[in-house]
Amino acid sequence: MDYKALDGRGLPAASSRSTMLRNVLSLHPALSNGTAETIGGVEARLLEVSRRAPDRLREPVFEALSAGGKRLRPLLVVLSARMGVPEESVLVRAAAAVEVLHTATLIHDDIVDRAASRRGRPTTVAGYGRETAVAVGDFLFAEAFGELAAVGDPRLVRVMAEAAAELASGELKQFRASGELLDVDAYMEHIRMKTAGLFRAACVAGGTLGGLSLRQVDSLATYGQSLGVAFQMTDDVIDLVGKPGRMGKDVGSDLAEGTVTLPIIFALQEGDGEAIRRVLLDPDPAPEDLAAAIAAVRATSAIERTESRARDEVESAISGLTELPDTPERRILEAIASKVVGRDA
Amino acid sequence: MDYKALDGRGLPAASSRSTMLRNVLSLHPALSNGTAETIGGVEARLLEVSRRAPDRLREPVFEALSAGGKRLRPLLVVLSARMGVPEESVLVRAAAAVEVLHTATLIHDDIVDRAASRRGRPTTVAGYGRETAVAVGDFLFAEAFGELAAVGDPRLVRVMAEAAAELASGELKQFRASGELLDVDAYMEHIRMKTAGLFRAACVAGGTLGGLSLRQVDSLATYGQSLGVAFQMTDDVIDLVGKPGRMGKDVGSDLAEGTVTLPIIFALQEGDGEAIRRVLLDPDPAPEDLAAAIAAVRATSAIERTESRARDEVESAISGLTELPDTPERRILEAIASKVVGRDA
Repeated sequence: MDYKALDGRGLPAASSRSTMLRNVLSLHPALSNGTAETIGGVEARLLEVSRRAPDRLREPVFEALSAGGKRLRPLLVVLSARMGVPEESVLVRAAAAVEVLHTATLIHDDIVDRAASRRGRPTTVAGYGRETAVAVGDFLFAEAFGELAAVGDPRLVRVMAEAAAELASGELKQFRASGELLDVDAYMEHIRMKTAGLFRAACVAGGTLGGLSLRQVDSLATYGQSLGVAFQMTDDVIDLVGKPGRMGKDVGSDLAEGTVTLPIIFALQEGDGEAIRRVLLDPDPAPEDLAAAIAAVRATSAIERTESRARDEVESAISGLTELPDTPERRILEAIASKVVGRDA
Repeated sequence: MDYKALDGRGLPAASSRSTMLRNVLSLHPALSNGTAETIGGVEARLLEVSRRAPDRLREPVFEALSAGGKRLRPLLVVLSARMGVPEESVLVRAAAAVEVLHTATLIHDDIVDRAASRRGRPTTVAGYGRETAVAVGDFLFAEAFGELAAVGDPRLVRVMAEAAAELASGELKQFRASGELLDVDAYMEHIRMKTAGLFRAACVAGGTLGGLSLRQVDSLATYGQSLGVAFQMTDDVIDLVGKPGRMGKDVGSDLAEGTVTLPIIFALQEGDGEAIRRVLLDPDPAPEDLAAAIAAVRATSAIERTESRARDEVESAISGLTELPDTPERRILEAIASKVVGRDA
């Protein structure tokens, strides 16, 4: 879909509406009708946010919201809500709000990291400069809370504000190697704030909108948190071993940036710490040093240990779901969790 | 008050509580008791936000929230609400939320501008770096909406989210001289988004919390908007002529940064456009060129015309207040408006 079409009043093209739907159908073909429609509604709502943006922000906002995200977080809202009986219009807004909030944090992260590209496209900061990137992120933050407010349930705003506050401190790279803070507990706390909090909030928001019992919402919260932790651990592994089927993606960017992740912590415990530490502390490591550090990590059991912990988290995520009704949506939540630890998308 | 004291459980020291109160008393000595107490409560609430910040953000958050702001926006919430009968705890949170939101936007503005100091102290970005400044701003955004959510009235979240979305686009310096957009209408639209929207939202939030009639809330909205416009125009004049009693403050920073304000627009209409344009287009103008451009502006009636428009706005602000009960709070709102156009604080 062309950005120019935003100026018109046409509905979003089917092709852009179906991104999220395709992802879900690949996980589980037997979606209930309502869920497929809700997913279409969320994409339309995201376009509406772009349309509403002030003139000079509209194009970067549209690009950021349509830049091929997996829509995992809004999907969690929708699936969690559909364990119960949500009101459709309200669910669509809440799910879109979670994706808008997530997008805002990505844009601000990219400013800090001076990242050139994300998902194969130029980042907002690379494409439009820092001034616009700051403004686009702030606009999206405001829109996310505006959408949540329109839902009319202050609990949602609060859940999401708490997650957003944690996310903000997760934006700090607490693990820039300084010789300190390189332990597993600190890593876990960091990724709970940086990644798992919003997964958890998405599930809680959905369960709340579905009118589930407190006990059911609690088990969705546990699911979301564990899923988020597993998701981040898997991401950290992919950074070191590359992604199957995707040649040319930078491998070892965490090491090169001095960001200490769980596999790196494990590797430092047992392997050739020297080669790894050298790269972590070097602001601009040479390619051969980076390759040596990656090899040093892979020579240990660090990757396996991280994958094993991620699988444990996924098992814990799935086991909590037994509190919930046995619906197609629950089976999709299970499939999402299983896919995360062997994920290729 | 020392930052370290935040780790303890003591109440904020009287000295920090009274900043806002001093400002109000200088405007009008006959405050009702309740208003003075509310103002103390707002300062305590701002400290509570600092206390709640994650470890690595606490110190910069505390510094940003206690950096000597005039507390004008929360004061507007409090005074507007006290035209009616607000619930105290809710009012305190809403007023604090407006100041927290305002502080978040200042911190992000300073990142874009690479500003070294604000209110005589290092900015967050200068003191802690860009990474922390982005995170502190995002944390404060989230906290502002969390506080508003706790109030339990979705209308407040919506009013504030709309103002925040406008503010985000106001962060763009639309008036960087590019030979375009140098007209009065565009300037007005820009400052309505950048400054007046939050003044207006503060008054609307207050009036809503006070349980005022729609008609009364509308007149508070008009007051807030006009006050904000007058405030910004006066700020733009001060940037060119300096502030009485404050030596050494940089004069002409808007010109030097290429930001076109109302007095500059007026000056270009009638004066030596050449000297002004040269500085606007020069990314790093020499001091003598800047001095020549300031002299060129002051040689015209631009300053007087801007001040005259600001006075018109203030009159319009005050005249709308006749819809409201004749209380000490209303007289303080009148005094604030009058003071803005001759303001020294």
